[in-house]
Amino acid sequence: MNDRFVAADKAALPVNDLGVQRGYGIFDFLRVSNGIPLFIDDHLDRFYHSAREMRLPVRQTKGELKEILSALFQKNNLPDAGVRILLTGGNSPDGYQVSAPNLVIIQQPLIPPSSHLSQACKLVTYQHQRQMPHIKTTDYLMAVWLQPWIKEMDADDVLYQQNGMVSECPRSNFFIVTGNHTIQTPARNILKGVTRKQVLKVAAEQGIRVEEKDISIEDIRVAKEAFIGSSTKRIIPVGQVDDIVFEPVSANSVTTRLFDLLLQNEREAISTGV
Amino acid sequence: MNDRFVAADKAALPVNDLGVQRGYGIFDFLRVSNGIPLFIDDHLDRFYHSAREMRLPVRQTKGELKEILSALFQKNNLPDAGVRILLTGGNSPDGYQVSAPNLVIIQQPLIPPSSHLSQACKLVTYQHQRQMPHIKTTDYLMAVWLQPWIKEMDADDVLYQQNGMVSECPRSNFFIVTGNHTIQTPARNILKGVTRKQVLKVAAEQGIRVEEKDISIEDIRVAKEAFIGSSTKRIIPVGQVDDIVFEPVSANSVTTRLFDLLLQNEREAISTGV
Repeated sequence: MNDRFVAADKAALPVNDLGVQRGYGIFDFLRVSNGIPLFIDDHLDRFYHSAREMRLPVRQTKGELKEILSALFQKNNLPDAGVRILLTGGNSPDGYQVSAPNLVIIQQPLIPPSSHLSQACKLVTYQHQRQMPHIKTTDYLMAVWLQPWIKEMDADDVLYQQNGMVSECPRSNFFIVTGNHTIQTPARNILKGVTRKQVLKVAAEQGIRVEEKDISIEDIRVAKEAFIGSSTKRIIPVGQVDDIVFEPVSANSVTTRLFDLLLQNEREAISTGV
Repeated sequence: MNDRFVAADKAALPVNDLGVQRGYGIFDFLRVSNGIPLFIDDHLDRFYHSAREMRLPVRQTKGELKEILSALFQKNNLPDAGVRILLTGGNSPDGYQVSAPNLVIIQQPLIPPSSHLSQACKLVTYQHQRQMPHIKTTDYLMAVWLQPWIKEMDADDVLYQQNGMVSECPRSNFFIVTGNHTIQTPARNILKGVTRKQVLKVAAEQGIRVEEKDISIEDIRVAKEAFIGSSTKRIIPVGQVDDIVFEPVSANSVTTRLFDLLLQNEREAISTGV
C-alpha cells in the first residue's frame, strides 16, 4: 500500500478514496508462473497508459514498480500467483476531485491454467458498451451485475454487443476463426489484452492470417471456431454464442494450434525470466 | 461502518471490497438542516431501491437505519451537514461475486445553500449515457474524468446528451421552462432526484404545468429558462448551455418562483421535523 508492506487482511482504503466513492480507479492484473511475472512489461505499459489516460499520476517509475514487485514476491514466496496493481483517485477532500492516488499491489495464490486446452465455454451476448473501453478501469458494474443472469442462462460468460457488433467479454478478448483459417478479433471499443497481443504475435509468426476488424453476430454465425483469451486463462475455446453452436475443437483446430503456441511462448518467457 | 461507530479518519474498506475492486456500490446523499435530515424518507426509499436493483441486501430495516442516523447525528452534533449512505459489494473472496455488503454512513459538515437564488451556471453538453441511470451507483468515472475539460470550457458542470437528446448532469437533474410557462424535464435515462420530485410537486400544487418528456438541444434553444436541481443546491438557474444563452432570471421568472416554493417547502419540512 503506497510505500508500505501490509498484511493482506489489514490492507484497507479510506472510505473517502475516490475509488470507493466514485468508482474512479485503474488496475492491471498479471500472472506469476514459477516465480516469473509473465509479460510484465506489457502489463506495466498498459498500467501506465491507463493511469495517464485517467490523469492519475504514478509516483513510481516502471523500474521502481518492478523492484517493489520483486520485494513483494520474495516476502510472499508464491510461485504461482496473481498480482493486482490498483491505482485509485485518492483521498479526495470534496469526494469529487482527483487527489494524490493510492497505489495498492496485491499478490494472491492463483491456480495456473491447465497445460491442456480447457473445455469449451458458452457465451451469451448482452447489449452494452463499456465506457472508456481502451482503459483498464475498475468499472465492472455491468459485469458483476450480470453474473446471476449469466448463471440463469446456463452460460459461462457474457459477450458484450452493440447493435449486433460484438466487442469483448468483461475480462477477456473475443476471437473467431473464419472458413479460410483467418483469425479475426474486434479492433475497436475494447480493452487490448496482453494475451490478445500474444495471440496476434504467435499467429503472425506462424503465417496464420490475423485481422483486427469489426465482428458482427452474423460473422460469428459463419465462423468455424471461436475462442476467448486472457492473462489468467490463456485461451479457451467457445462452444456456443447464444444459439450459435461450434463443433468441438480437434487436434487440427486453429484454436488448438494457437494454444500450443501460447504455451510454448509462455515457457520461453519463463525460461528467459521475462 | 456496519455495526460500529468509527472516527472518520479511521474509517476504511478492505482492498478486496467489490466497491474498490470493481466499482460495485450504491449510495445516497442527503442534507441535514437545523439537525433535521431533509426528505429522509425519499432518500431512504431510493437507497433501498438502488440496493435492491443491484442485488445488495441491506441488513437493516428503514427504521433501524433511521435510528443509526439519529445516533450518528447526536454523536457528531452538526446542525448543517451532508450524510452519505454507502453500500458496497462487500469483501469478495474472488473479487467478482457479490458478498455480504459493507454499509458505511458518513456525516460531514456542509455549508447550506443560500436562501437566495444563486448566480446562473454554465453547462457544456457531452455525449454520454450513464449505465443503469435509474440506480444511484458509485459510477462517476466519466463525471470525475471530465472535470479538467469542464474547467477548460470555463463551465460549471456537464450536461450529458445522447444524439442530441439531453438527460442529466452528473449530480443534478435538468429542467427547462417553455415559452408558455411549462416546466419540462427528461423522463428517461436519468436518476430521479429527490429535489426533482419536490420541484414537480410544488409546481403542480401552484398550478404550474409540468411535463416529463424527452428534451432535445433544440428544445433548450427555444426555452425561456433553464435550471438544475439537486439536494445540496436546491435549484440553480442555468445561464448558458453550450452556445445557448438565457436571459438573467428576474423576480417574475418561473425559476425564482420555484426557488421560493422549494425554500418554503424545506422550511415546512424542518418545522415539522420530517
